Formats: sequence, C-alpha cells, structure tokens
Amino acid sequence: MSIKIGILGYGNLGRGVEKAVNECDDMELVGVFTRRDPANVSTLSGAKAYHVDELENMKNDVDVLIICGGSATDLPEMTPKYAASFNVIDSFDTHANIPVHFANVDKAASAAGKIGIISCGWDPGMFSLNRLYSESVLPGGKAYTFWGKGVSQGHSDAIRRIDGVLDARQYTVPVPEALEKVRSGENPELTTREKHTRVCYVVAEDGADKERIEKEIVTMPNYFADYDTTVYFISMDEMKAEHSGLPHGGSVIYSGQTGSGDSAKNHVIEYSLKLDSNPEFTGSVLTAYARAAYRMNQAGDSGAKTVFDIAPALLSPLSGDEIRAHML
Amino acid sequence: MSIKIGILGYGNLGRGVEKAVNECDDMELVGVFTRRDPANVSTLSGAKAYHVDELENMKNDVDVLIICGGSATDLPEMTPKYAASFNVIDSFDTHANIPVHFANVDKAASAAGKIGIISCGWDPGMFSLNRLYSESVLPGGKAYTFWGKGVSQGHSDAIRRIDGVLDARQYTVPVPEALEKVRSGENPELTTREKHTRVCYVVAEDGADKERIEKEIVTMPNYFADYDTTVYFISMDEMKAEHSGLPHGGSVIYSGQTGSGDSAKNHVIEYSLKLDSNPEFTGSVLTAYARAAYRMNQAGDSGAKTVFDIAPALLSPLSGDEIRAHML
Repeated sequence: MSIKIGILGYGNLGRGVEKAVNECDDMELVGVFTRRDPANVSTLSGAKAYHVDELENMKNDVDVLIICGGSATDLPEMTPKYAASFNVIDSFDTHANIPVHFANVDKAASAAGKIGIISCGWDPGMFSLNRLYSESVLPGGKAYTFWGKGVSQGHSDAIRRIDGVLDARQYTVPVPEALEKVRSGENPELTTREKHTRVCYVVAEDGADKERIEKEIVTMPNYFADYDTTVYFISMDEMKAEHSGLPHGGSVIYSGQTGSGDSAKNHVIEYSLKLDSNPEFTGSVLTAYARAAYRMNQAGDSGAKTVFDIAPALLSPLSGDEIRAHML
Repeated sequence: MSIKIGILGYGNLGRGVEKAVNECDDMELVGVFTRRDPANVSTLSGAKAYHVDELENMKNDVDVLIICGGSATDLPEMTPKYAASFNVIDSFDTHANIPVHFANVDKAASAAGKIGIISCGWDPGMFSLNRLYSESVLPGGKAYTFWGKGVSQGHSDAIRRIDGVLDARQYTVPVPEALEKVRSGENPELTTREKHTRVCYVVAEDGADKERIEKEIVTMPNYFADYDTTVYFISMDEMKAEHSGLPHGGSVIYSGQTGSGDSAKNHVIEYSLKLDSNPEFTGSVLTAYARAAYRMNQAGDSGAKTVFDIAPALLSPLSGDEIRAHML
C-alpha cells in the first residue's frame, strides 16, 4: 500500500519534492496544491494540479501533506492550519521563531491526532542532527557550521531589489583558512567576516551606475556589511549560461575532547554536503521524513516533531532486518 | 536523579566509557565489573572494582550495564546473558553475525522487560547512521566507507603472533586518489587494494630474520595479501615514543542523485571522523546511548535495539525545548 502524498506549493522546493516522491516505490503523488489557477500549472510528472481550496475536500485522500512555502509568511500560517486535518511536514527555517512555530503546530496536530514535522531539510535538518549527535557524544565541544559554496536566494533577492539591477546571483563561500583551522581541532574564535565571504554576479541595466550599485551591495546592513563581498558585473547571457543552477552545501564541524588535563584526547567530527541542487536535496529530505510522519501516525503518535524526535529507521522503506544486514 | 552505570570489562574500551561517564552530570558510575581479581584492578576515577559474579546481587543498583568485551567470544555470550537482568549496551562488530546476536539479545531483553542496544560505536554506529540517513534521503546512490588513518588492533595482533616479532602496530590508510574520486561523485568501482593501504611498524627480536618476517606479513591471507603493505622495522623505544596511541577515524561518503536523465543532479554527503583515541570515542558513543537505553526502558520499551531505532533526542541530557532552541 502506497503512502499518498500531497504537495502544497509548487515552486523550486515543490518540484524537488515531486522528483523525490517519484523515486519512492512506496509512495504515490496524489497531486500538487497551489494558490495559482491550477489550469496554468503543468507538473513535471504529470501529477494533477488542484487549487489549494480543494484540500478541504480531500482529507481522506492525502496521508501526508508536504508544505513547500516560505518561512517568512507562508509556513507560520499554513503548517498549523493544515496540521488540523493532515499529517504535515515543512522546512521552516526562521531560527528565532522555531519555539513559537513548534508550539502552534503541536497544538493543532495534537488536537487532530496528526503528526506535524517542522524545520526539516538540511539546515535546519541534517546539519541539526549532526550538531546534536556530536554534542551528545562529546559534551562540551564546539560546533562550527559553514555554508557554501552555494547560492543564497535571500541575498540574491536583496541585490535584485537595488535600482538598476536586472538580475543577480549571490554565492556564500566559506573561508578556506577558517575551515582548515576548525578541521585541525584548534577551536578558533571566528568572526562573521572570518568564516564566510560573499561573491555576487550582477546584471546591470544599460547605462546604470555600477559604482553606486556595488557600493549599495557591499554596505547593505545584515546582508553584506559584515562580510568581505566581491561584485562582478556580467551579461544576461553569462548569467543564464553559468549561474542558472541552485547548488549549495556546507559543513558542520564539531571539535570535542575525551578525558581532561594532560591525558585529554581531541576528536573532530565533520559532516559535509556538496549539493548540485539545494531545492531538490531539501525536497528529498522532506520526502524521507514524510514516510516517518506517516508511520508514526499509523503507530498512534501525534503532535509536533522535529528531526530530533524521529528514529532513523523510520526514514527507510526497508525493513529492520534489511537495514541491520546491509547498513549496520 | 542520576542514571546508575555499570561497566563490564575493564580494558581500553572500559576505561574510555569510564572517562565519558565522568563527563556526564546526569550519570554516576556504580562500579567496574571484571573477571580478574578486583583487588588487582585500580580504576582511573577511583570507582569501585567488583568481581563480575557480584552483578547477580546488584540488579537494583545498576540502571544500564555497558558491556566492554570482545566481539569474537565475549559479547555473543555476555550480552544476552546480562540482558536478562539489566538494560545493556554493547559494541558488537562481527558484521555477519549481527542478525543472530540481535535475535538472541531481543529474546532475553524482551522476556525481562529490558532494553538491549547492540553494535554501538562508530562503525558499526555513527557510520551506520550516516549510511542509513543518506540512503533514505537519496535512494539508489552508492555508499563508500573508508577507514583510517588509524591503528587496527586486530592486524597489529596478527603481526605480533609471527615468530621473532616483539611488538607491532598496523595503520590502515585510505588511498588519497580513491578518496578524491569518490568525493568528486564519480562513483568508481574500487577493489580492496585500491581503497586502503596497510603500514606496519615492527620491533623484531635481536638477530631475527627481517626478510622472512616481512614476507610473512605481506603474504598473510585475509589480513594483508589483498593490500599493498609496507613494513618498517623500528626499535622498542621508537615504538613506545611514536606509536603508543590508538588513533583512528575514517569517512562514509555517499554519492547519489535527484531526478533522472539529463536533468539529474548529483549530491555528495560525507561524514568523517578524526579520533585521537578510538576506544575513548567509542566509549563516549556507548555512554550517550546508555542514556537512551535508560530513557526508553523508563518509558516502557523493551527488546533489542540498534542506533537505527533510537530517536536522536534521547541521546542528549538537554530538554526538547533546549535542543530545538540551540541545535535545530
């Protein structure tokens, strides 16, 4: 029997989930739910597109609803709302608001007897798992998270809002010397500027004042002012040819000790990702956790969960015997 | 209230567990249980040493018994035996026998209403988790496991059994070119010889035939014949000065795809460990999972478990609120 999946929101992440679901023999994609006119939405796999309002009539047709919205305004409203009717899962990543979001989803999901997994993907998600595993095994060590090299969509959007900019792509790049220091187990104190640089590719309007644009970028508070930022002006053709992908990745490096004093021993744990497509990988993580949401709910569990609460075996379509024989 | 820990077996691994337990504010070490005469065992922390037969009278004094024996003969007998009276955890690593060991421990632990976690450490253990998480997120990819650079105690022992050898240390070393090929996402087919080399430091008896010893090493079936092996003869002083530690480590590298055909995207996931002390890190993993064993049993669960069955949050002494706020 297949797990019936619905996708709410059909942008890059929704398409990533669609591809991942299609690779899973134990799942079927019921449909894509959109706020747009579904007549204008054609899906990669040919799955049916529905208007989001149809979800109300499909409570028995969808086992898990994977919510592919933005963290700023979509998810805080959508995830609790749909947790009242479906097992849901999202990739909420506004760190400071996770406690409130968790509480809201927990209230709705618990009342409905459904599972609501929040903040799933790679960071938060797989990176969080590695921070937790490492800190639990080697308490009192130091976790460093580096992002990139990869495209930050938020920073790219910020550049696009500057007057005279037609298109932009911003790469976050870890500083190699900082990575090496951390990998060596030195436990350095690193400022924001020492950890990452930002590299921007910008297509300017004809005749635009490039000097002004560059200055507006590198001095932009929160986004760029605290970083060493490099700006390259390129043509629209070059943008399309060289920067159309959404690669990303990064590393969680944890440096800890056993014992103390002269006999203390150092240990370095590193988890790293090199992703050709950020939304497709994130969609794959959401899909694996959708399987867990379904199984936990079938077993009678309900309420809000994060990756921390989910036994790894629940992610795999294989049986306990199979994973012990082949992966342990 | 502290979790009361007992350590069964007091070699390198037992001492590693002792150090780890001493770093945990929520645990207390009840004692070390040994087959030797406890009068001759002095512990690092001053914990009391008991003869193993005393365990029978201490069923209510130990919440989790961490069994630090060998996989060849100790654990197959000990873990099921003590699972009948205690929550237990071991580092059983004879891969082919895991299904039988799991079944034996499951039978005893289930009947007693106790938890028995088997095959915990870093491989099997943390490496297994990474194989499972990766395969679940990117089904159909390829997992590569590299070990080293680090000391293999089994291979060192094999050399010590050769006539004329006083002491020996064997390092397993991954082949850099193989690592790079795998990291690049090429998915190469690699033979045993192409993945690892073996480097041996040997102290020979005065007047021993070094040429014969070297030949016996490099042609030894199972241990060395399938590898490129280098042998260095050194003095006992050099052995003590340069090779007294037990460093180890390695990497699990998983290479998988999303989508298919021309639009397929590649993703590489790497988890790596650089450990100054193999037994101390392994002991730290066992200790974190001992916390989980206790909590699962307190919640009414019983039977055999592996790292796959255990939600990550159970490993941390912190609350759900705390780990969501600080690590998600």
